[in-house]
Amino acid sequence: MLALTILGNNSAIPAFDRNPTAQVLQTNDESYLIDCGEGTQMQMAKYKMRRSKITRIFISHLHGDHYYGLIGLITSMGLLGRLHELHLHAPAALEDILKLQLNVADTRLPFPLHFHAIKEEGIIADDKKMTVECFKTKHRIECWGFIFREKKNPRKVNPERASIYEIPAAFYEKLQQGQDYVNKKGTIVPNEEVTIAATPPRSYAFCADTIYDETLVDKIKNVDLLYHETTYLKDLHERAASRFHSTTHQAATIAKMGNVKKLIIGHFSSKYETLDDFLPEAREIFDNTELALEGACYKI
Amino acid sequence: MLALTILGNNSAIPAFDRNPTAQVLQTNDESYLIDCGEGTQMQMAKYKMRRSKITRIFISHLHGDHYYGLIGLITSMGLLGRLHELHLHAPAALEDILKLQLNVADTRLPFPLHFHAIKEEGIIADDKKMTVECFKTKHRIECWGFIFREKKNPRKVNPERASIYEIPAAFYEKLQQGQDYVNKKGTIVPNEEVTIAATPPRSYAFCADTIYDETLVDKIKNVDLLYHETTYLKDLHERAASRFHSTTHQAATIAKMGNVKKLIIGHFSSKYETLDDFLPEAREIFDNTELALEGACYKI
Repeated sequence: MLALTILGNNSAIPAFDRNPTAQVLQTNDESYLIDCGEGTQMQMAKYKMRRSKITRIFISHLHGDHYYGLIGLITSMGLLGRLHELHLHAPAALEDILKLQLNVADTRLPFPLHFHAIKEEGIIADDKKMTVECFKTKHRIECWGFIFREKKNPRKVNPERASIYEIPAAFYEKLQQGQDYVNKKGTIVPNEEVTIAATPPRSYAFCADTIYDETLVDKIKNVDLLYHETTYLKDLHERAASRFHSTTHQAATIAKMGNVKKLIIGHFSSKYETLDDFLPEAREIFDNTELALEGACYKI
Repeated sequence: MLALTILGNNSAIPAFDRNPTAQVLQTNDESYLIDCGEGTQMQMAKYKMRRSKITRIFISHLHGDHYYGLIGLITSMGLLGRLHELHLHAPAALEDILKLQLNVADTRLPFPLHFHAIKEEGIIADDKKMTVECFKTKHRIECWGFIFREKKNPRKVNPERASIYEIPAAFYEKLQQGQDYVNKKGTIVPNEEVTIAATPPRSYAFCADTIYDETLVDKIKNVDLLYHETTYLKDLHERAASRFHSTTHQAATIAKMGNVKKLIIGHFSSKYETLDDFLPEAREIFDNTELALEGACYKI
């Protein structure tokens, strides 16, 4: 299972019942929270996502609409008696803010909160079945995108066929890794004869806030799902550039150039009461596009 | 007009669609925000209260459920182009938190934000028609209650009766203040003959978070409306005491001893899915009690 749930899809000011950025990426083993705007914990309750399940939180940048809900979420986790560790990946300055807020309230969290300051591009988390890389995006302040990549899954051994070739169970792990088997007589049993290919590893790229930037293309190339912000409709490309944001056409162009399978667009400006025009505009360039709708869950 | 609107009535953890503490007290001239838990700006939008109208914000203490929504509200005010000044009254440490958060986002507010650190009991705001006093409450950390008192209204001059006694208009201001008129012949015209009494000044006391504390009685004596927290039902008085909170019976007892006209109870624990038992319990002691319901507006 790899699924993305949108908790907030709006830009800077909450408006028209749309909330600031927050997303949850769920695997069978982990639950990752990506950004945490004000009200994220209420949105989690609304959409029945348990705070306790979150294993890592990634904060793209320190504009308030991407992290003002974090201290409330962390405080609630503590009040609810969480004991298991939580990993937080974010720009360094966030640590001071959290410490200050916990100190003035005389709060000691009952669980270990591991703060990992994001410093350079590369792998920042290496979990059992997933790695997470970060990459820089071009915004008004330091800002990071994240790519979540499933690790290569092992091939599945077909035990009936393996027994025909008299392959000992001790060799199964090597079969799962793709090795051929050589029996006592020196005969080669090709791996494909006794195993089935695994599901190819899937990937999700979260591009955070960014101006239109073609250097992103190489970073997000071929991912299964790309989230790219579309703060504005295509006519406002000048305003988008001046504020280091993107338009529908720009997001869709990055998706097309990056040969991604699917695009999700969000971070809509509060100037738009309805989102009616976003999807048709993006699809003019890249057909397999969806709106990031709050509460919606996108299987990857 | 003097009216209190409840935006959040829950204690520490948002739950069952109840939000953390926030209230708006509206007069004809001012709009005061009292506490500002996470999501307050969303609650203001939901209940059609304009962010721009707020003239002063009062923060009782630095537990998150009373101020985590403040930075988001202030940031939004800035993004919406507010230019007129905003006064913020709060424990001193809040200033550092706000400055840090604005600095990391490279945000400069377009309006003057005047931070007034609360230091001792007494009058902390003196507006045209209202004074605001603060008083200490007993909680786990430094915590302040607030009393909002209308200034004494001037008496209303009845011009027809004043002309019968040939009182010159230049003397009307003194009539409004209650003075008698002495004409040229030395005859006294009693003030009551030519003026009508003004509406008596009204008052609202917000008791913040507090353990049961009878020293509050003198402070809130005779107010028209008292807000007193009832985190717990009466059976949990020991838990209430250990956490520096109060029960239904305790809040109602303070109201009764203080001879207030009306009591509003709130700050309900997240352990209660429904609020059904709060009102009957409080009314066992003090009949004129109401629940602080989100979105409800109580005329004072």
